Amino acid sequence: MSTTDAGFLAALDEAKQGYGEGGVPIGACLVSKDGRILGRGHNMRVQNSSATLHAEISALENAGRLPASAYEGATMYTTLSPCDMCTGACILYKVKRVVIGENNTFVGGEDYLKSRGIEVINVKSPECEALMTKFITEKPGDWNEDIGEPSA
Amino acid sequence: MSTTDAGFLAALDEAKQGYGEGGVPIGACLVSKDGRILGRGHNMRVQNSSATLHAEISALENAGRLPASAYEGATMYTTLSPCDMCTGACILYKVKRVVIGENNTFVGGEDYLKSRGIEVINVKSPECEALMTKFITEKPGDWNEDIGEPSA
Repeated sequence: MSTTDAGFLAALDEAKQGYGEGGVPIGACLVSKDGRILGRGHNMRVQNSSATLHAEISALENAGRLPASAYEGATMYTTLSPCDMCTGACILYKVKRVVIGENNTFVGGEDYLKSRGIEVINVKSPECEALMTKFITEKPGDWNEDIGEPSA
Repeated sequence: MSTTDAGFLAALDEAKQGYGEGGVPIGACLVSKDGRILGRGHNMRVQNSSATLHAEISALENAGRLPASAYEGATMYTTLSPCDMCTGACILYKVKRVVIGENNTFVGGEDYLKSRGIEVINVKSPECEALMTKFITEKPGDWNEDIGEPSA
């Protein structure tokens, strides 16, 4: 698992798309055990006034209705440590592994994922961290809203 | 908190709508601390081919973009014990309380909600349980898919 994986590159591309749209720049990509991209997406809070379309939720939603077997051995790539909702979504569908771009700007449910038997790998991408740092500096209100925190 | 609360009645009404549409009959309603309905909705797996629009997610989504302060002291009513994803969504937005219709047909993240400081109240509604029991008997495949379980 590294920053050259197709799933990671797709997630990073989604994050950049989100930034270009004026949104929260977090992307995700769900990859099956045999390496196929099942779904990809990015945070749509700003674009769709959505409270629930975080990146991982968008990727799962764009993958569509799937039987449990489709998620067996799957990997969720996400550019940022997943929030509690996205952590729960990965647990619901029993993905095998969550690969995160970084957790320096936000730490989500990594420990809980591990406690539920899901592998967590941090690829420590400077590009993901720089993108989030820029966004948080530019739009702290949007960011705090996205993680359910009061604005300063 | 009881089966006569407006929030519970709205959630139950949503669940019945879902059943009428041929969907997974689970409904939810998010109520602010001062008793206003912020959003309500039902599971849309069948209707929208959605992997993520569980009842609680629909209610949060229908409530739209809100600041953290809007969820302070809020109650999420749901006709069924919440799955891991919906559990995480309630934790993300720090609702105060989750009121569930029943947990005889499915037990979700109640203990985890409590461990994260959220009150959980089970109103033990025979109507919620009867609706779910009927659905699970009629459409076991749809149900198993919704909770990420293989079909028998």
